[in-house]
Amino acid sequence: MRLDVVTIFPEYLEPLNVSLVGKARARGQLDVHVHDLRDWTYDRHNTVDDTPYGGGPGMVMKTGPWGDALDQALADGYESGAHGPVLVVPTPSGRPFTQELAVELSERPWLIFTPARYEGIDRRVMDEYATRIPVYEVSIGDYVLAGGEAAVLVVTEAVARLLPGVLGNAESHQDDSFAPGAMANLLEGPVYTKPPEWRGRGIPDVLLSGHHGKIARWRRDEAFRRTAANRPDLIERCDPAAFDKKDRELLSILGWAPEPGGRFWRRPQAVEE
Amino acid sequence: MRLDVVTIFPEYLEPLNVSLVGKARARGQLDVHVHDLRDWTYDRHNTVDDTPYGGGPGMVMKTGPWGDALDQALADGYESGAHGPVLVVPTPSGRPFTQELAVELSERPWLIFTPARYEGIDRRVMDEYATRIPVYEVSIGDYVLAGGEAAVLVVTEAVARLLPGVLGNAESHQDDSFAPGAMANLLEGPVYTKPPEWRGRGIPDVLLSGHHGKIARWRRDEAFRRTAANRPDLIERCDPAAFDKKDRELLSILGWAPEPGGRFWRRPQAVEE
Repeated sequence: MRLDVVTIFPEYLEPLNVSLVGKARARGQLDVHVHDLRDWTYDRHNTVDDTPYGGGPGMVMKTGPWGDALDQALADGYESGAHGPVLVVPTPSGRPFTQELAVELSERPWLIFTPARYEGIDRRVMDEYATRIPVYEVSIGDYVLAGGEAAVLVVTEAVARLLPGVLGNAESHQDDSFAPGAMANLLEGPVYTKPPEWRGRGIPDVLLSGHHGKIARWRRDEAFRRTAANRPDLIERCDPAAFDKKDRELLSILGWAPEPGGRFWRRPQAVEE
Repeated sequence: MRLDVVTIFPEYLEPLNVSLVGKARARGQLDVHVHDLRDWTYDRHNTVDDTPYGGGPGMVMKTGPWGDALDQALADGYESGAHGPVLVVPTPSGRPFTQELAVELSERPWLIFTPARYEGIDRRVMDEYATRIPVYEVSIGDYVLAGGEAAVLVVTEAVARLLPGVLGNAESHQDDSFAPGAMANLLEGPVYTKPPEWRGRGIPDVLLSGHHGKIARWRRDEAFRRTAANRPDLIERCDPAAFDKKDRELLSILGWAPEPGGRFWRRPQAVEE
């Protein structure tokens, strides 16, 4: 996979040399190119922004440098044999970046990131490239960053670990939170390792029982408890057909009940008060 | 504000020297301490992980190094006069990190981050410190990273830009997506700057009209359009009392209708088909 990043803070992308992504680069699984947007400015102050049309606070990133930088990145990539580029634009106004979207992007051969600063990039840049290649405007969460560079690190890492051969142990995807399967839509519960006692704290007996069925049940119960506490929205999104008798008993204890005739379960009013 | 980060990849935190956070450090608004977890290992291989109790794939981070590292970070901080520490544990199983939580954390004088790798940290570490200081287990989004370091960069940046004096222009918070006020719960629409024409593309006439009321209305309409397209969940969360007549007309055109007697608006089935 080829990655291009155009940014006014190339040094923010240093983590792409580290850990999983750094190792994937060293093995040739990722071909990363970081470009300084200011290389495509032609005035003495290397200006990349200007005041917004219509007034208001903040500055808007100008069309010119972005257009020239992206044209060059595309030309260089095609020349080196890359194909199928998509533009990934981090913005709080984008569609949510989810594990599903990480999987989708991991199947693309070439991602070009445009992390912005200030109030964002002049709209015409996205409109222009959308006539040529797919443009994904994505938001990594409901919070505001100083710029898109941290989002590039997040998306790159989520995508890179899904590439074939990048994770050492192929099995480690299976139990991921948000992964498909028996634990779909449930958060992972607590984990423990040696020693069996630390500062007076032991571990749950069931984990030493050697009884695989009981351990699986305990893990599922803990996943339900944690999801109900931290992410009630995920419980509501579950298909109740996936809940077995024990799940329903536990959900009832946690204050959840089936909605009459409905697909989803909801925490009843009485518990909220 | 004091920040401590304990990690096995200190070099991943290099972006804390760059841009907004780097400048806040240079000005003394942020006091950042990055610690290498492996400094608190005592075996030849600097082991920080072991197999999970109960079996299964992946590795779990051990109590010992984390406990010793956190004790030391706490002792050093208190000795230097810091107070009111909170532990921030990035994990996909945590409560969602939102702008509201960023505001809450920005009011704390001292944040200690514990970005984990592998399947996470032995549960007893969080249980132990929760008896002493507040522990926030937070998830920056519904995707899986290789480790918590990218999440530390995200949380730090979202929090730092809210600290007094860190953003150059105090006004620039006002129009943030997810900020309180007239645009609460709406995503920001498109922005434009000079030149008025680029590659044959102009800008919307209204932005050149000089008519503040019309510009505000256009921006609100665009915010509604974008939110309806990318984040229908945010529209559903809005209080319809905040919708004026024009909002309701636009929502109706976009295929939304008030739920009979209900607080929320929903896209009617007919439109979904």
